[in-house]
Amino acid sequence: MSGLPERSLIIGQVKQVLAEDLGSGDLTARLLDEHVEAEARILCRESAVLCGVAWAGEVYRQLDPAIVIDWQAADGDSIVPGQIICRLCGNSRSLLSGERTVLNYLQTLSGTATIAHRYAEAVSGTGVKILDTRKTIPGLRLQQKYAVRCGGCHNHRVGLYDAILIKENHVQVAGSIAAALKKARETVPAGVSIEIEVESMSELKEALVADARRVLLDNFDLRMLSEAVKLNAGQARLEASGGVDLQTIRVIAETGVDDISVGALTKNVRAVDLSMLFV
Amino acid sequence: MSGLPERSLIIGQVKQVLAEDLGSGDLTARLLDEHVEAEARILCRESAVLCGVAWAGEVYRQLDPAIVIDWQAADGDSIVPGQIICRLCGNSRSLLSGERTVLNYLQTLSGTATIAHRYAEAVSGTGVKILDTRKTIPGLRLQQKYAVRCGGCHNHRVGLYDAILIKENHVQVAGSIAAALKKARETVPAGVSIEIEVESMSELKEALVADARRVLLDNFDLRMLSEAVKLNAGQARLEASGGVDLQTIRVIAETGVDDISVGALTKNVRAVDLSMLFV
Amino acid sequence: MSGLPERSLIIGQVKQVLAEDLGSGDLTARLLDEHVEAEARILCRESAVLCGVAWAGEVYRQLDPAIVIDWQAADGDSIVPGQIICRLCGNSRSLLSGERTVLNYLQTLSGTATIAHRYAEAVSGTGVKILDTRKTIPGLRLQQKYAVRCGGCHNHRVGLYDAILIKENHVQVAGSIAAALKKARETVPAGVSIEIEVESMSELKEALVADARRVLLDNFDLRMLSEAVKLNAGQARLEASGGVDLQTIRVIAETGVDDISVGALTKNVRAVDLSMLFV
Amino acid sequence: MSGLPERSLIIGQVKQVLAEDLGSGDLTARLLDEHVEAEARILCRESAVLCGVAWAGEVYRQLDPAIVIDWQAADGDSIVPGQIICRLCGNSRSLLSGERTVLNYLQTLSGTATIAHRYAEAVSGTGVKILDTRKTIPGLRLQQKYAVRCGGCHNHRVGLYDAILIKENHVQVAGSIAAALKKARETVPAGVSIEIEVESMSELKEALVADARRVLLDNFDLRMLSEAVKLNAGQARLEASGGVDLQTIRVIAETGVDDISVGALTKNVRAVDLSMLFV
Amino acid sequence: MSGLPERSLIIGQVKQVLAEDLGSGDLTARLLDEHVEAEARILCRESAVLCGVAWAGEVYRQLDPAIVIDWQAADGDSIVPGQIICRLCGNSRSLLSGERTVLNYLQTLSGTATIAHRYAEAVSGTGVKILDTRKTIPGLRLQQKYAVRCGGCHNHRVGLYDAILIKENHVQVAGSIAAALKKARETVPAGVSIEIEVESMSELKEALVADARRVLLDNFDLRMLSEAVKLNAGQARLEASGGVDLQTIRVIAETGVDDISVGALTKNVRAVDLSMLFV
Amino acid sequence: MSGLPERSLIIGQVKQVLAEDLGSGDLTARLLDEHVEAEARILCRESAVLCGVAWAGEVYRQLDPAIVIDWQAADGDSIVPGQIICRLCGNSRSLLSGERTVLNYLQTLSGTATIAHRYAEAVSGTGVKILDTRKTIPGLRLQQKYAVRCGGCHNHRVGLYDAILIKENHVQVAGSIAAALKKARETVPAGVSIEIEVESMSELKEALVADARRVLLDNFDLRMLSEAVKLNAGQARLEASGGVDLQTIRVIAETGVDDISVGALTKNVRAVDLSMLFV
Repeated sequence: MSGLPERSLIIGQVKQVLAEDLGSGDLTARLLDEHVEAEARILCRESAVLCGVAWAGEVYRQLDPAIVIDWQAADGDSIVPGQIICRLCGNSRSLLSGERTVLNYLQTLSGTATIAHRYAEAVSGTGVKILDTRKTIPGLRLQQKYAVRCGGCHNHRVGLYDAILIKENHVQVAGSIAAALKKARETVPAGVSIEIEVESMSELKEALVADARRVLLDNFDLRMLSEAVKLNAGQARLEASGGVDLQTIRVIAETGVDDISVGALTKNVRAVDLSMLFV
Repeated sequence: MSGLPERSLIIGQVKQVLAEDLGSGDLTARLLDEHVEAEARILCRESAVLCGVAWAGEVYRQLDPAIVIDWQAADGDSIVPGQIICRLCGNSRSLLSGERTVLNYLQTLSGTATIAHRYAEAVSGTGVKILDTRKTIPGLRLQQKYAVRCGGCHNHRVGLYDAILIKENHVQVAGSIAAALKKARETVPAGVSIEIEVESMSELKEALVADARRVLLDNFDLRMLSEAVKLNAGQARLEASGGVDLQTIRVIAETGVDDISVGALTKNVRAVDLSMLFV
Repeated sequence: MSGLPERSLIIGQVKQVLAEDLGSGDLTARLLDEHVEAEARILCRESAVLCGVAWAGEVYRQLDPAIVIDWQAADGDSIVPGQIICRLCGNSRSLLSGERTVLNYLQTLSGTATIAHRYAEAVSGTGVKILDTRKTIPGLRLQQKYAVRCGGCHNHRVGLYDAILIKENHVQVAGSIAAALKKARETVPAGVSIEIEVESMSELKEALVADARRVLLDNFDLRMLSEAVKLNAGQARLEASGGVDLQTIRVIAETGVDDISVGALTKNVRAVDLSMLFV
Repeated sequence: MSGLPERSLIIGQVKQVLAEDLGSGDLTARLLDEHVEAEARILCRESAVLCGVAWAGEVYRQLDPAIVIDWQAADGDSIVPGQIICRLCGNSRSLLSGERTVLNYLQTLSGTATIAHRYAEAVSGTGVKILDTRKTIPGLRLQQKYAVRCGGCHNHRVGLYDAILIKENHVQVAGSIAAALKKARETVPAGVSIEIEVESMSELKEALVADARRVLLDNFDLRMLSEAVKLNAGQARLEASGGVDLQTIRVIAETGVDDISVGALTKNVRAVDLSMLFV
Repeated sequence: MSGLPERSLIIGQVKQVLAEDLGSGDLTARLLDEHVEAEARILCRESAVLCGVAWAGEVYRQLDPAIVIDWQAADGDSIVPGQIICRLCGNSRSLLSGERTVLNYLQTLSGTATIAHRYAEAVSGTGVKILDTRKTIPGLRLQQKYAVRCGGCHNHRVGLYDAILIKENHVQVAGSIAAALKKARETVPAGVSIEIEVESMSELKEALVADARRVLLDNFDLRMLSEAVKLNAGQARLEASGGVDLQTIRVIAETGVDDISVGALTKNVRAVDLSMLFV
Repeated sequence: MSGLPERSLIIGQVKQVLAEDLGSGDLTARLLDEHVEAEARILCRESAVLCGVAWAGEVYRQLDPAIVIDWQAADGDSIVPGQIICRLCGNSRSLLSGERTVLNYLQTLSGTATIAHRYAEAVSGTGVKILDTRKTIPGLRLQQKYAVRCGGCHNHRVGLYDAILIKENHVQVAGSIAAALKKARETVPAGVSIEIEVESMSELKEALVADARRVLLDNFDLRMLSEAVKLNAGQARLEASGGVDLQTIRVIAETGVDDISVGALTKNVRAVDLSMLFV
């Protein structure tokens, strides 16, 4: 799977998460001999899309660089119940101290990749891109954005710093949609596009007249979406947003919009069922 | 709600999460005048238990200490659709730059508090304590543990560092349940109790003979749980674990165990629906 | 001046820079009484554009929150020789311990704003935007990008994370300009535009056929630039790059390109002459 | 070149600078295959003194430890237009992601080493030491101090913590030059020398009577410098400061002072022209 | 010696301590050739218990990973005057730059292990556990707790986060010992035991009636301790505290208490005499 | 007491030390009401020199900025048994959560200041300066250096970065004492003096011939020290080192050396007996 966050980000994230679990040290690990080797496997217990291999690997690299992991599946792969995801061997204490942290990463990120995959499949063939949002778990944004891509969906902006999305409040201050777009074009760094949110057909018209290139159609119903697609006639890229779930997404896609953004991809998490077995 | 994580932890967490969203700066905020004041409200759109007030407050304290928040509800409070959770007033740019981060904290932590509350209610009157686990979202453990308490459940150990839980692997290395318990008692810091996991009635017997004071009954069915309670006769504190959900938890509680641990409290997240409205 | 980097970034930057100068403590300051108040002024000694007020203020906020600064000029203001930029009063030790760090910030960032201002003036009336680049002083990128804006120029992408710029190497791997653009459109986060670098007229044609929206014309001479503008006929936004200085920028601007990027804005620094005088 | 900053400092500096450029990840790199090897060279395009090899190496060590760099020149070496500075080979994505950061380090630090070299040559044969100052680019002090040494000049104190420089304000508080020197001798850590700044011949006399061992002659003209050298008669080490540039430094050196400090070494930066070529 | 703090903690601690000594770089090391190899030994000059091997090793791993250390003794070993603790070989500059930091770790932690060993021997055969306290050197708690174990004593809680110790103030707020214990049982995370401090025989009675399982007997004299043991009759674990030194600890142990806590283990430090010799 | 480490250093140190004690939160504090005010005092129980007021204050500033401390003594003051050092009032939970950390700082640093005071008194009237060394507790160097000054002694260099001390190894590499001194003079930053260690009278002669200005006389006996003072005849500053304790220091001082360095000041710690009483 291409597009992994940079190595140093992963190193820093794992460092913190290990601190969270290990704190002043693994008390139970002291019961074990220091020099015993063991072998283990991570097993999947349900159908899912795998995500988080780099984080899992980094956990053991930090805890004990001597642990060897032989991955049998890669990020983005569909995995099935009973499938072995990887084999691990090395010091048994280290394996046990890292077990929960590794599983927490894999179960959380695979959970997001799996739900993203379901949304992507629901619109397959329509050419519509499904986008995530900034509704994410605090502290987990970059990882979730990556998991979304592993599941076959696409990323909206990462944060407030890499794209402009003009909302109602910004329009009010600027005085009009046209004025807001003009001001945005003057201040935006080159290479960053500008999207404007509209809440009605008349606002959409105003935006199109002002030469908008990306428009977010907020809470438009199916009829409005179709009308918007017609009105737009290919000028701007149109994004549907609001009230989207696995049941409704196909019909929304079929209205002809270009993108659909889905908060549920990242604001909820349903962990995939995985476990580590010692041989 | 008592027992908030220490102030400096919250400061550090919020600092990172703001960096995640704001990175090199809020591009859209540049469209706004620097000196305009605004008023806003956070509104709840479904029944829930509130959690995350301290994090939300810290977000604005870091972004702009001049913002004033008037909270109308506290962590642990039940909130209903349409209820105003707080009123905010201050610089409109700052309010907008922090909006998503504040909502992400509140919707995530309230999500956990809300589900915890449902579990707590399901066993009300039985005297059973519901415990969380170490199956948490990477980077969010302390916050989730706090949310669990806000919902009326209890915390199991925070990490590997504050309690001993002897599992099968540790027993194998020690040679027997009795030997493992003996070694644990020798190495454990004073003030930390020792729990041992058993997977059968005979292991339970062995543990009780070895004077175990806390036993985790792993994947015992209802019949086995009842039998275990009888056999134990009040000697050890008994914890049921495995296969627990909102449907089954009441009958498990009625077997007479002392504690039930529930991974679903913290490994899944279902965000509560909240929004910020500008007046 | 709008668009200051977020407060927490500035806090962190200043913290490090103070550590750099103060290390284990200001040895000379120990000669001074601890409780003497003083008054000082920062004076400008040449014509310049001011930049860095927030960093200067933060230096004293961290060293000694009791110091009061009364600013007589703001970021982006033109300042002249002899002009008082601010008056400071407070503990004389603290004033002296922070003096050099404050001046280093102001002289460096004002240096960049001043040179940016000269470039902006050189093209005034042409409608062309002057962009900075990623050729920056290590560790100072966000501050320099802000100074560039204070001087009236514009920002290109901040880093590798907030925009796509397809270069020769990427085209080679993808097989063709069209293929590279296609792949970029599939993987790019929504809200991020795609720019492609071309080195000849034929590559430009290829890019335009593939529906490029932003094109960087690398080292095109004046004649080629004019031809490119004609060929483009308003389809893509065109950026001239390479061999630009204060002498040549006006004629480049007059070819009709949209943007001109200038490495010299940020890869060189010429400190503005400022000093702090004690009254 | 001896005297590189400690390894851990370089690691930390590079970590931050990579974060600055890569942030949430290199978007364009996603266009490339993950497993393609490439070869590249860094070429010099003007006469210069090289500096920054350790930082450049660390950039790739952090991004991708598998990249191999074969350096053809070392810090402190004079390099000429067209000279190959190093050959790099390894993963093409990693090479591209680090290209700009590596060049920014080399062009900035070589810029400082090159200017330092010119100053050092200007006084060659006089025995005078050229010193840098604390007028540095915020965040870059240790690197600039090292570059100054690579160019053949010397370091004044690193910060406020490693030497005492008594200025007018300190003298005023102490009551007299003699009193200030006395107090400094009482409080200074052993192993740290004391320098006193004087602004007139009479202050110099006072300092010499008070047994000063290092004196900074602030803004003395040539005639005053010569007189100061005579008056001093070898007692204290004398440092000329103020109004020094490449034109004037030789005559200042010939007055017989021991040291000349030059703010321009580090407060300005002129990047050396370097580029990375892919083979 | 089992139970070393996690690797990442040690890495972080050493990083800071190296910064403390090396700051902007080892000035004296610049006198040495960069490429000379040397051999050295660390020698013990008095009878002691060794502690700190992992920190010493990490110092050189960070300074120069090429240095090889051949340890001749392990943490927890008794060492005698003249004994070689390890042989080191590698770059002579690196060896010298790390010398003091390595010795500071070994002399400080071995000092604590040595005193702990004396206390442990003083009660040998009694079955009593000697506990440390939270009276530690700021910044050194985890290292000292580990050294205490190396010397054969045991750890009380690590901090305020991993155990509950109810003191007078908590009892006052709760209203009674019984009420405080009840409230503690309700809020304590599972796996954390509760200890209550009592200052008189009647408070002890109250605690035992309220089913206390761990009781700290604060400043009980020998007669009171014996009486407490009798009264307790094996119900709670009893800990003596206050006025304990090497002279008195044996008679305190013989009263039949289970644990004795000793602040002197960690609030004082007496460095062991060690030195590094170059061959 | 003048010369406190910079505020930001103290803030960072206290942050870490609080984390050490509070970790995931003070479990026992949850027993207390959140909104109860209390009053407390810190009492001294033995004769000592106070040190650590700034750290103690910072502990409560970070835990709870609303706590008010009224100090009755300052760093460097002699305090007596029974003396009230400060009165504190504020939230009782916060007071209790910070109690141990505050006392650990005060008892440790006052311990060092107290022993330094004894050494300073032992040589009073001789004009000799007593210096500390780099033999410090890992992580506590700057604090201990400050405590040494509070006790009336003086600081040797802080670390390897702020002074040059040429030892045997450096001389061997350079070839001779003269050569080592020459090389040091060429590379040393301006403002940093150079000290050379000698182990015999003949080495001392060599150093004096080579114009040494500071000489450390390593393990010279009394007779040798006197002879060295004579030989030196005021040329260099002489420092005695080795075998110094409270019994011997006076006679060493009377040999006429300028400085005596004492490792025991900072390598050992004897905590002063302090306690916090709630009113």
